[in-house]
Amino acid sequence: MAAGKRSLVTLTTDFGSEDGTVGMMKGVILGINSDASIVDLTHDLPPQAIPPAAYVLRRAYQYFPRGTIHLVVVDPGVGTDRRPIVVQAPQASFVAPDNGVLTYVLDDLQAAGHPLQFVHLDNPAYWLPQVSRVFHGRDIFAPVAAHLSLGTPINDLGPPIDDPVRLPAPHLSRQPGKITGQVMYIDHFGNLLTNIPAADLSSLGNTLTTSVGQAQIHGLSPTFAHGSPGQPIVYIDSSGHLAIAAVNASAQDLLESHVGERVQVTSHHATNSSAGGSSD
Amino acid sequence: MAAGKRSLVTLTTDFGSEDGTVGMMKGVILGINSDASIVDLTHDLPPQAIPPAAYVLRRAYQYFPRGTIHLVVVDPGVGTDRRPIVVQAPQASFVAPDNGVLTYVLDDLQAAGHPLQFVHLDNPAYWLPQVSRVFHGRDIFAPVAAHLSLGTPINDLGPPIDDPVRLPAPHLSRQPGKITGQVMYIDHFGNLLTNIPAADLSSLGNTLTTSVGQAQIHGLSPTFAHGSPGQPIVYIDSSGHLAIAAVNASAQDLLESHVGERVQVTSHHATNSSAGGSSD
Amino acid sequence: MAAGKRSLVTLTTDFGSEDGTVGMMKGVILGINSDASIVDLTHDLPPQAIPPAAYVLRRAYQYFPRGTIHLVVVDPGVGTDRRPIVVQAPQASFVAPDNGVLTYVLDDLQAAGHPLQFVHLDNPAYWLPQVSRVFHGRDIFAPVAAHLSLGTPINDLGPPIDDPVRLPAPHLSRQPGKITGQVMYIDHFGNLLTNIPAADLSSLGNTLTTSVGQAQIHGLSPTFAHGSPGQPIVYIDSSGHLAIAAVNASAQDLLESHVGERVQVTSHHATNSSAGGSSD
Repeated sequence: MAAGKRSLVTLTTDFGSEDGTVGMMKGVILGINSDASIVDLTHDLPPQAIPPAAYVLRRAYQYFPRGTIHLVVVDPGVGTDRRPIVVQAPQASFVAPDNGVLTYVLDDLQAAGHPLQFVHLDNPAYWLPQVSRVFHGRDIFAPVAAHLSLGTPINDLGPPIDDPVRLPAPHLSRQPGKITGQVMYIDHFGNLLTNIPAADLSSLGNTLTTSVGQAQIHGLSPTFAHGSPGQPIVYIDSSGHLAIAAVNASAQDLLESHVGERVQVTSHHATNSSAGGSSD
Repeated sequence: MAAGKRSLVTLTTDFGSEDGTVGMMKGVILGINSDASIVDLTHDLPPQAIPPAAYVLRRAYQYFPRGTIHLVVVDPGVGTDRRPIVVQAPQASFVAPDNGVLTYVLDDLQAAGHPLQFVHLDNPAYWLPQVSRVFHGRDIFAPVAAHLSLGTPINDLGPPIDDPVRLPAPHLSRQPGKITGQVMYIDHFGNLLTNIPAADLSSLGNTLTTSVGQAQIHGLSPTFAHGSPGQPIVYIDSSGHLAIAAVNASAQDLLESHVGERVQVTSHHATNSSAGGSSD
Repeated sequence: MAAGKRSLVTLTTDFGSEDGTVGMMKGVILGINSDASIVDLTHDLPPQAIPPAAYVLRRAYQYFPRGTIHLVVVDPGVGTDRRPIVVQAPQASFVAPDNGVLTYVLDDLQAAGHPLQFVHLDNPAYWLPQVSRVFHGRDIFAPVAAHLSLGTPINDLGPPIDDPVRLPAPHLSRQPGKITGQVMYIDHFGNLLTNIPAADLSSLGNTLTTSVGQAQIHGLSPTFAHGSPGQPIVYIDSSGHLAIAAVNASAQDLLESHVGERVQVTSHHATNSSAGGSSD
């Protein structure tokens, strides 16, 4: 850590904001490192749902300064024998239950060729003295993140491991004239965010048709302001992937979509003879 | 900036708290100025609704220390040719899309005689290297606010302008014995906040009647604790304007009101012959 | 205050997150002490409900470092003659309306034998120059907390008092083979948290039956992962008290429970002849 630079810890949970549970975690962190800077990524993830948490974390972490410590607690297995772990890369460290919630971050870091170290957190010297079976966020993850922010080497925290749990790979297939992916996440505005990279669309030419459920959407809109109210549009989201919105409305409601639903993009000609309904 | 004083940046958006988008903006700011102090004003504004955002910002900014930088992203026109702008006054700076969201702040600053400088943000040297068409909050506004917090002169950020977009003026008319204004904002408790200044009420004498929709409310209550449960009351809100509450209930629900609805205050005598229903 | 240690202020309110009211309080605090570190405990407490606020605060305060200042504004009596107060203990200080919201904290501190000082905040030299009748959080409590964080002695803030308002004691009775308590709080996941200490359960032997409403639940689950989906389970919560959850569901919805409802724990044998329905 450069002198004078405050270390940064982000928090991502499904704890909601009502109960003060996140506040307790912050109290624990600041009791160990009073100079830590703490940023909430979100605490309003769907309860105990791991893929949306993994998605939000992967999308966000690269916008934080080098050395940021990301603490994630979406933890349906708390109190069971699922391991608490730390993953350390040059860019960032991640403290989380070993339940797959780091999958997309690990994919991203490994695709970029970054060296990664994994540790199983089994050293109670870095935990609170009393550990509740139901709140490891406060009693294990928060103190470990605080100690990391003070510069504690990860090897002090427990033994190395090499087999973190991974989620199944999302569906993504490329065929000539056709790419099929899936809805990865539905955001606050009801936009459907997919795993289809914008960079891959050029292979399909300039006139795209996107199919999701019964709807077919022609073309690619540069902004949300294009199209008439209620109309579904396809755009490139802020992480560089294909996404589906409804102008001034919720695409989730309009298209009755859900995370995991297949999304297919074809060159325009391929769908001219389609019997499917058209949404535009 | 005085030595040792941390610069303060506030954030106001309609992004909600689920998706980690606000967290990404904070990561960008802290990556540029790790010593910035960041305060959330709100992220739960109604989606893409500019007047409530303008109201919340005007009400709050004067409670922050001199030199605070207020970053506002309620931005239905993101990715179109609407301008990103900065407004700088001695009291505070504001970074926002040029869509009217600063209207009430500008009214307030200009009424107080403060000199203002406006700049069109068109210098990408102060943005993130890659700018998404749909997330200028992260890619343009956050880095610009961070650079301002480091002391970057606003003239480095782009050329001066003098024609920021303004919302239409809210309705406010004063006649002998009568003031008519409107609901400007409905708060978390369902209270209806108007633009009728408390200072103007003295001209109406001591016995006021407030009319909103079909309801007439007599008198002015010093606190929420006056009146029986469910009863509508009129009080002076924390910004010094007339407001309507329902004791232990939501005035919005009780009176089926909405932002923009007319509110009329008369001296008590003027309403004695009114055929309107009475709510108390 | 140790040199270099930033003073910590927590905020607990029922103000919600939409209106920027909490942000204004932070602006006031940082205008007085720009180096204060501010943590949100929660702003989503049920409106004007004092017992849940008292519960959340008591559960959380002990996880913050010594010297933390806790500012609480759940204040149905704002603008009436209810007193604003400060309570100071070696562990922490509390700034709040004198309406019982500190009851459980005071019980806890006094049970631990800590010396406490109470002050009635009546010295406007430590308030904002203008005090709204409806927003003492911004105009009285926030500036007082900020001055405390700078080291202002509490006796400068007003005269000592010794009669802070207290809530009635929650129901808790111990009989041979039976402990009766109550639901104290219902959390974000719909878990029912009681005031029955885990430490007292050993007197009932190893086989417990918990009765709440029409339901009887046998045994004690070590984690949320035990049991089939929708099944009610009894566990020890993170504050060391008996609690009731429903596996992957809301116990509040399943059992139609509410704060204040009686919860009875007996040794298993005592309920074998019960006519009540069994939930497992």
